[in-house]
Amino acid sequence: MVTKQRFIAVIGGSECSQEEAKLAEEVGRELAKQGAILVCGGLGGVMEAACRGASSEGGVTVGILPGDNRQAANPYVQIPIVTSIGYARNIAVVKSAQAVIAIDGNYGTLSEIGHALQSGIPVIGLNTWSLFKNGQQDSSIIPAQSPAEAVTKALNLAVK
Amino acid sequence: MVTKQRFIAVIGGSECSQEEAKLAEEVGRELAKQGAILVCGGLGGVMEAACRGASSEGGVTVGILPGDNRQAANPYVQIPIVTSIGYARNIAVVKSAQAVIAIDGNYGTLSEIGHALQSGIPVIGLNTWSLFKNGQQDSSIIPAQSPAEAVTKALNLAVK
Amino acid sequence: MVTKQRFIAVIGGSECSQEEAKLAEEVGRELAKQGAILVCGGLGGVMEAACRGASSEGGVTVGILPGDNRQAANPYVQIPIVTSIGYARNIAVVKSAQAVIAIDGNYGTLSEIGHALQSGIPVIGLNTWSLFKNGQQDSSIIPAQSPAEAVTKALNLAVK
Amino acid sequence: MVTKQRFIAVIGGSECSQEEAKLAEEVGRELAKQGAILVCGGLGGVMEAACRGASSEGGVTVGILPGDNRQAANPYVQIPIVTSIGYARNIAVVKSAQAVIAIDGNYGTLSEIGHALQSGIPVIGLNTWSLFKNGQQDSSIIPAQSPAEAVTKALNLAVK
Repeated sequence: MVTKQRFIAVIGGSECSQEEAKLAEEVGRELAKQGAILVCGGLGGVMEAACRGASSEGGVTVGILPGDNRQAANPYVQIPIVTSIGYARNIAVVKSAQAVIAIDGNYGTLSEIGHALQSGIPVIGLNTWSLFKNGQQDSSIIPAQSPAEAVTKALNLAVK
Repeated sequence: MVTKQRFIAVIGGSECSQEEAKLAEEVGRELAKQGAILVCGGLGGVMEAACRGASSEGGVTVGILPGDNRQAANPYVQIPIVTSIGYARNIAVVKSAQAVIAIDGNYGTLSEIGHALQSGIPVIGLNTWSLFKNGQQDSSIIPAQSPAEAVTKALNLAVK
Repeated sequence: MVTKQRFIAVIGGSECSQEEAKLAEEVGRELAKQGAILVCGGLGGVMEAACRGASSEGGVTVGILPGDNRQAANPYVQIPIVTSIGYARNIAVVKSAQAVIAIDGNYGTLSEIGHALQSGIPVIGLNTWSLFKNGQQDSSIIPAQSPAEAVTKALNLAVK
Repeated sequence: MVTKQRFIAVIGGSECSQEEAKLAEEVGRELAKQGAILVCGGLGGVMEAACRGASSEGGVTVGILPGDNRQAANPYVQIPIVTSIGYARNIAVVKSAQAVIAIDGNYGTLSEIGHALQSGIPVIGLNTWSLFKNGQQDSSIIPAQSPAEAVTKALNLAVK
């Protein structure tokens, strides 16, 4: 691979509140400013807001779609990947990234967090799931307090 | 589909403690006694113990394998499915079931829990993950205190 | 894996002529008589006819479905696998078998033939595709003149 | 999706002769000159030659990898997609394109041709498979005599 650029996934719900969209857009903007390529699931909500942010700063956006149709991509996806494998594409979203930023999200996002952690890909969390087992918190999801902190941590922790 | 039988997935780590193996084996045995078909990821640990239990009661066991090779199935898998799609097969494990029993487990199990809950498939938990968001517990994982209780709840909640 | 049974896939169109259905049903019947487990894509046409034949002789039938819903399985599928990965499930159909019998079929069947041959899984053809490259026939698809011959060849060539 | 660019897949063996590599490189170069984005399976042989050609003209290259590791991408892939779903990724390669150019190739390429034709995605062939059924040639693979002709036909036939 010729590129030196880093690939960072942003995951979160395909529907989201205005507050979450604002966080996601800021994450996308910050990733683009840092020269990272944004990977996401290509749909609406957090994904769209992140792509919008990245695009506004001239960043590159990749959307790894579950369905059969590139038209399902949000308007800010530049490189749509049409997997046609449904939500099994969640694993491709996180595997295609060197670190993952999770913003809020529901059970689909939880599956992506699981796939990322299973693969040793760092997960930075903004208002997202917390995990406990046997009464103890699992500290694998690295918390961030702001979009800028999330991006800094993601870039610092990005695996090869 | 001609069968009236219910399909219940047992998910958990491919390595596990003796205590977890005992729980899994008892779950498998109980599922077989109730006439349910056991679906799992086909490998070792919790999966193997559950298959061993089901087999000991004459139950049917299906192992949905990640790799390329049926030989990777544990010795108690009767119907090995060779997906060759890696851990994307996690989604097929839970989708092929009408309810899921999670026993302990690590991040792969977490991804399966996420996929199941996203699909509206009930998840019964035995010593497994607890989920929190925004400081509040998500109550989607239904706790059970014993293998027998887990199986009863799974069969009662099984979706069509 | 405890089973000594052989797994043979039957592939072909989800719609088919009466003549093809008759071939497929006879293949299914013969597989069941020989104690083989029938693997297929779980839908209609050739798949349904093969499952009907196998069921009529008390055979076991596995349907590896593309979609999200076990209800899509034909009525003779006993073990429905709900992959939710769309037509990427074609590779799981052939990988789960030790030999493949292709009956007629269209482009989906062609993709399955390609996946099987790439994996070194023998393909027996009944009125199905012929392949040529650079003006020469590729002889990898082993022709059969009858269902019984197809089943005999499949069982003889079945890989481990 | 904001982009107006067209996505064209180049498929063929991960090992290839010098002559095929020359064809593939010329196809890649021509696609880049026409402003199309090259999609491929990301590995060696025809895929690498096509990416090298596209890169030499400043084109964008996307490699949809079967494995777990971005390092497996050939050196000319700019956007590596790490699917981790093995050769089931073949379907994502063709679905992500609006037309497919097949150069020589073996059974994996055959599976991709099958998936593309099943999905209504045009396939242009350069020295690749010919398909026959019931003694008659299937004319779905559109022949081209040169890389330039293949690219022109692919761009003209590209689906939306």
